Parts: sequence; C-alpha cells; structure tokens
Amino acid sequence: MKALIDRIRAEGRNLGKGILKIDSILNHQIDPHLMFAMGEEMARLFAGVKIDRILTVEISGIAPALTTGYALGVPVVYARKIKPITMAGAVFMETAPSHTKGGETNLLVSTEFLKPHQNILIIDDFLATGQTLLALARIVASAECRLTGVGVVVEKSFENGRAVMHEAGYAHIPIHALATITSMDDHHIIVADA
Amino acid sequence: MKALIDRIRAEGRNLGKGILKIDSILNHQIDPHLMFAMGEEMARLFAGVKIDRILTVEISGIAPALTTGYALGVPVVYARKIKPITMAGAVFMETAPSHTKGGETNLLVSTEFLKPHQNILIIDDFLATGQTLLALARIVASAECRLTGVGVVVEKSFENGRAVMHEAGYAHIPIHALATITSMDDHHIIVADA
Repeated sequence: MKALIDRIRAEGRNLGKGILKIDSILNHQIDPHLMFAMGEEMARLFAGVKIDRILTVEISGIAPALTTGYALGVPVVYARKIKPITMAGAVFMETAPSHTKGGETNLLVSTEFLKPHQNILIIDDFLATGQTLLALARIVASAECRLTGVGVVVEKSFENGRAVMHEAGYAHIPIHALATITSMDDHHIIVADA
Repeated sequence: MKALIDRIRAEGRNLGKGILKIDSILNHQIDPHLMFAMGEEMARLFAGVKIDRILTVEISGIAPALTTGYALGVPVVYARKIKPITMAGAVFMETAPSHTKGGETNLLVSTEFLKPHQNILIIDDFLATGQTLLALARIVASAECRLTGVGVVVEKSFENGRAVMHEAGYAHIPIHALATITSMDDHHIIVADA
C-alpha cells in the first residue's frame, strides 16, 4: 500500500535488533485518514473471503482492526493482555513471547465474544516471528471457529513468520501485509515496493 | 446518544463498587459502526471548538479517539501506560490512580507528538473520578498546548469527576459525554435519557 510504504520510508527508524520505530504512524500517534485507508485496503485484499468477525490483540492492533471491521461491516474483538476487572467468566487464554517487551505475554479472549463456527479474520500490526499470530490462531481453534485470513499492517519478512505459519498448518489461508520490510541490516530499513 | 444509551441499557452489567461492565461495546468487543457514529457525534458536539489534535490514553480510549479524529480530520496521539522499546527520547509523564486495576498508572506521551501551541481535545472512555482526565490535562499543560475540550463515551456522574475538573480550573472548557450513568446503587444501572 503505497501511502503506508511512503510514510514508513519517511518516518521509520531502525532501533537495532529488528526493532522498527513507526510510532508516528501506528502505535503512539495515529493518522486517522491513513488508518481508514488501511482498513479499506484490507477489505479489498480479503474480498470474497468469508469473515464474520475480526480478532486482534491490544494495543496496536486495535486501530487497524477497527477500520478493517468498519470497511467489512463486521464486529471486532481484541485479546486483552492483562485481565481487567470487567472480564468476568471463562476465557480462552494463550501465551506468546513478547517481541518488544521481553518475557511472555498472555492473550485473553472472553468466551462471550468468540462463539463456535464463526469465520475469523485476524488483524495485527506486525507479522514478525509469527508467534503472536499463532497464539491468536490457537484461540480461534479453541473457540471452534474457522480462521479464514490474516492481515497485518507491516510484515518483517526477514523474521520468517510467514513460513512459520505455513509450517503450522496455515498455508491454505490468505496472509496479506500492507507493507513488507525485507531487511533491517546495517541500520537500513528496506521496504519492498507495493 | 440514543444508540449508545440503548446498548448500555441492554448489555451493561453492574459488577459492584461502581464497576460498569460494557466490554461488549467498548473495551473487548467493538461494534465499528457504533464506534464511528460515536466519533461523528463527538465531532458534532465539538463543532466550532478549535482542535488541532486529539489526546487519549490506551487502551479503551483508542477506538473512540480514532473515530473522533477521523470525523474531525485531526491526528490522534494516545498516552502509553508502559514505556515501549520504541519510545525513544523525552516524554511527558503524569501519574493517575487506576480505577479498575488498583495502584497508580503512568501516562507517557513522547514530546515528538505534542508540540507547543496546539489546541487539544481529550477523548476517553470514562469520566468517573476525573483523575485520569486531569493527568492528561497536566500533560497538555506541560506540552504548552491548550486544552479546548473533553469528550468521554460514558460519564458516571455520581463519581463527581466533572465537579473535580471544574474545581481544577477547567470550568470554562466544554465537557461532553455520549451517555451519563447517574446511579449504580443496589445493582441497578441508571442511564440518563439522551
């Protein structure tokens, strides 16, 4: 998606160890019009795919999931990382390694909001090692729902998450990224053309 | 806002001690069309107010801030509660008591994203005791910006946050709520009519 790629090229910073700072676009400041355009692009990419509900994970997944949900006309549910006092009753819980914070992160979704036999599109900010997306996919499976697609804002293809998802049994599912970073070696940020 | 009030009356649960569970609407599941309508209603309520930027706080503030920012055509910045590895450089930091988690919560905004002399609309999910909004207002002041309005999705008027904000020097600023809960006594949820 050209508008996003241009912004990453202009504003992205390579903090080393594969950490991409694009918080002016994605996870501190939000440009609502760009975020809406991203949702429309996701809807275009997944046209023809059965989607009853979008699943994402707080915090940075919320904005792109919301705009994609708006474009597709489906509800959004976001996994919580810390159980809030308002989360009563049973939950689906999975654990993923945290990429930017270290340690493990819990992902919690109330059973109220994922009912069996729904078609689920997972939306998230990054596809890096694929571990967070796999944890979300396990929640989809636990809920007896069907994963029909995965859409991310930015894929860091050099971290091989797409191959990890293929090997985990999701090769048949469309996985789309709005921008793909092919390398972050030597302080550079190489973004593939749209 | 009638659509929101109807949903709170239908889905809200009183968990006791002033804790309102509306996570089917606001902070676990999101209905994108309702969330967009909320943003449009915020834009209508603040028509004529100078707004260059919206400030909110993760997590539940992000969705209503994004849709309000879209309706107003202004950028959104959300305060972080935990410093992410991508937050480099100086920050504005304030502390507020956490209503649903206990203890204190840090609110952090990078100085990159709040420059002096901007007109700021604060958007958040709840106005309860007012302490989080006051902490955000202190960040606005630290950044030498001007607070021109405060919009919340739900006001729990029995917790007197509006009076607290008036006493803190914000009586001249428009404060709007899309729904007002006047009482949560005796396991009831009394929502004022629109």
